Amino acid sequence: MHVHVNAAESVDGKLSTREREQVAISGPADFDRMDALRAESDGVLVGVGTVLADDPSLTVKDDERRDRRERDGEPATPARIVADSRARTPPDAEILGDAAATYVLVSEDADEADVAALSAAGATVVTAGSGRVDLPAAFERLEDHGVERLLVEGGGELIFSLFDAGLVDRLTVYVGPVVIGGRDAPTLADGEGFTDPDAFPSLSLEDVERLDDGVVLTYDAGAEEQ
Amino acid sequence: MHVHVNAAESVDGKLSTREREQVAISGPADFDRMDALRAESDGVLVGVGTVLADDPSLTVKDDERRDRRERDGEPATPARIVADSRARTPPDAEILGDAAATYVLVSEDADEADVAALSAAGATVVTAGSGRVDLPAAFERLEDHGVERLLVEGGGELIFSLFDAGLVDRLTVYVGPVVIGGRDAPTLADGEGFTDPDAFPSLSLEDVERLDDGVVLTYDAGAEEQ
Ligand SMILES: NC(=O)c1ccc[n+]([C@@H]2O[C@H](COP(=O)([O-])OP(=O)(O)OC[C@H]3O[C@@H](n4cnc5c(N)ncnc54)[C@H](OP(=O)(O)O)[C@@H]3O)[C@@H](O)[C@H]2O)c1
Ligand SMILES: NC(=O)c1ccc[n+]([C@@H]2O[C@H](COP(=O)([O-])OP(=O)(O)OC[C@H]3O[C@@H](n4cnc5c(N)ncnc54)[C@H](OP(=O)(O)O)[C@@H]3O)[C@@H](O)[C@H]2O)c1
Repeated sequence: MHVHVNAAESVDGKLSTREREQVAISGPADFDRMDALRAESDGVLVGVGTVLADDPSLTVKDDERRDRRERDGEPATPARIVADSRARTPPDAEILGDAAATYVLVSEDADEADVAALSAAGATVVTAGSGRVDLPAAFERLEDHGVERLLVEGGGELIFSLFDAGLVDRLTVYVGPVVIGGRDAPTLADGEGFTDPDAFPSLSLEDVERLDDGVVLTYDAGAEEQ
Repeated sequence: MHVHVNAAESVDGKLSTREREQVAISGPADFDRMDALRAESDGVLVGVGTVLADDPSLTVKDDERRDRRERDGEPATPARIVADSRARTPPDAEILGDAAATYVLVSEDADEADVAALSAAGATVVTAGSGRVDLPAAFERLEDHGVERLLVEGGGELIFSLFDAGLVDRLTVYVGPVVIGGRDAPTLADGEGFTDPDAFPSLSLEDVERLDDGVVLTYDAGAEEQ
């Protein structure tokens, strides 16, 4: 599987304010860039924190891109995927709408009734790991469902876990011309954090492009082929 | 006063790990860029958190730059300044060495004995504000001492307060090709954080330059002339 992480951050690395409400960090050109990334993917993954905060639909918005996918025998919008250990995704979440297939990755600890409600709402539930979702195991199961090109759109808790597991191949970040601040605001990579500089994931800066009023940084994150 | 904030951050906006130990985010070219910025300044400011974590000397390292300053009738190294409300700077801190003048900005709440110890160690103590240092008031006092060009080198608590007070004119950030992660790791701007997008400090991206393995982003932060 090829895993591409894409997000928009402030100059100080924040994905949002400490209130975790969605804020516009990027502009229309970056939005279009993200739409193109979705259109090139088999699946788009977010953490349940993002579903609860933003209730995104994760669909491809541009009609031409949707048409092109359909002409190529693909669904107009890639599969939407949530990492959601305890099955907290609300059954009326946008991501469960009928615009595309939806996978909910849960752990063995998820409540049966919550899992059943998600299935009833149309999701395919994938169980992997105890406690938190075992991401490498879940990704193997997604490959069985044909997800070879995975786009990850956040948030920072999920992104950290992906780097920690060595699963990231490519990272693109739009850095918007804004300071958000806040020691409790979510950043591009939260979680426990790395402490040993020798264990920091190694990135290689491949491209720098000005876009809207900000800049897009593209890194090769060099994950091993899974 | 012209206030220039400069720091090195990971792609996810971190200045260090959650253990707050100094980590090498940038390389020799960025180090040289920082040395040049110091050499163009009348004063270099950090928060006491940085003094306690890194014990920096904040001196100009390059001999030619030191010579040029002296030929221009300036001290070889600009004044070192700490924002330190409670006078917690250890009297044996590098910043108090005799390489240059040192100012410690304290609040009215600082303990008299601690203030006396800093004076005895050679620092000029400037008292401004109660609770935390009142930065606008302290900066006026620094101007009286001839500090017109101030370089701020961090950390994230101090930088947030400067943006919050509308005191920042220019921001340069070296973004290193590394993910540090950690919801408790210090970022470029911590503090309480902004919540209202209309109140976010407005930055204008002026320059993007690849340096070492990373990129330097330069922003006009448009502070009002103080
Ligand atoms: N600017 C942008 O591009 C952007 C993009 C996305 C989100 N955001 C913002 O980011 C914030 C949400 O981010 P977030 O970091 O709080 O949440 P998140 O990363 O979206 O979701 C985190 C949750 O995912 C679940 N999860 C399941 N398996 C996991 C694993 N192996 N590792 C880590 N998490 C796992 C965990 O909950 P369980 O333990 O219950 O499973 C965890 O709390 C919101 O403010 C949103 O607006 C911004
Ligand atoms: N990568 C880089 O470029 C870079 C640069 C610098 C630092 N760092 C790292 O950053 C970390 C330290 O940063 P930090 O954020 O913890 O500390 P900091 O910003 O250096 O210092 C914060 C402290 O300054 C004092 N202060 C006085 N007046 C203030 C005011 N008006 N507003 C805010 N603070 C005021 C406060 O202590 P009192 O209330 O006691 O006064 C506050 O706790 C360390 O890990 C260091 O290695 C990295």
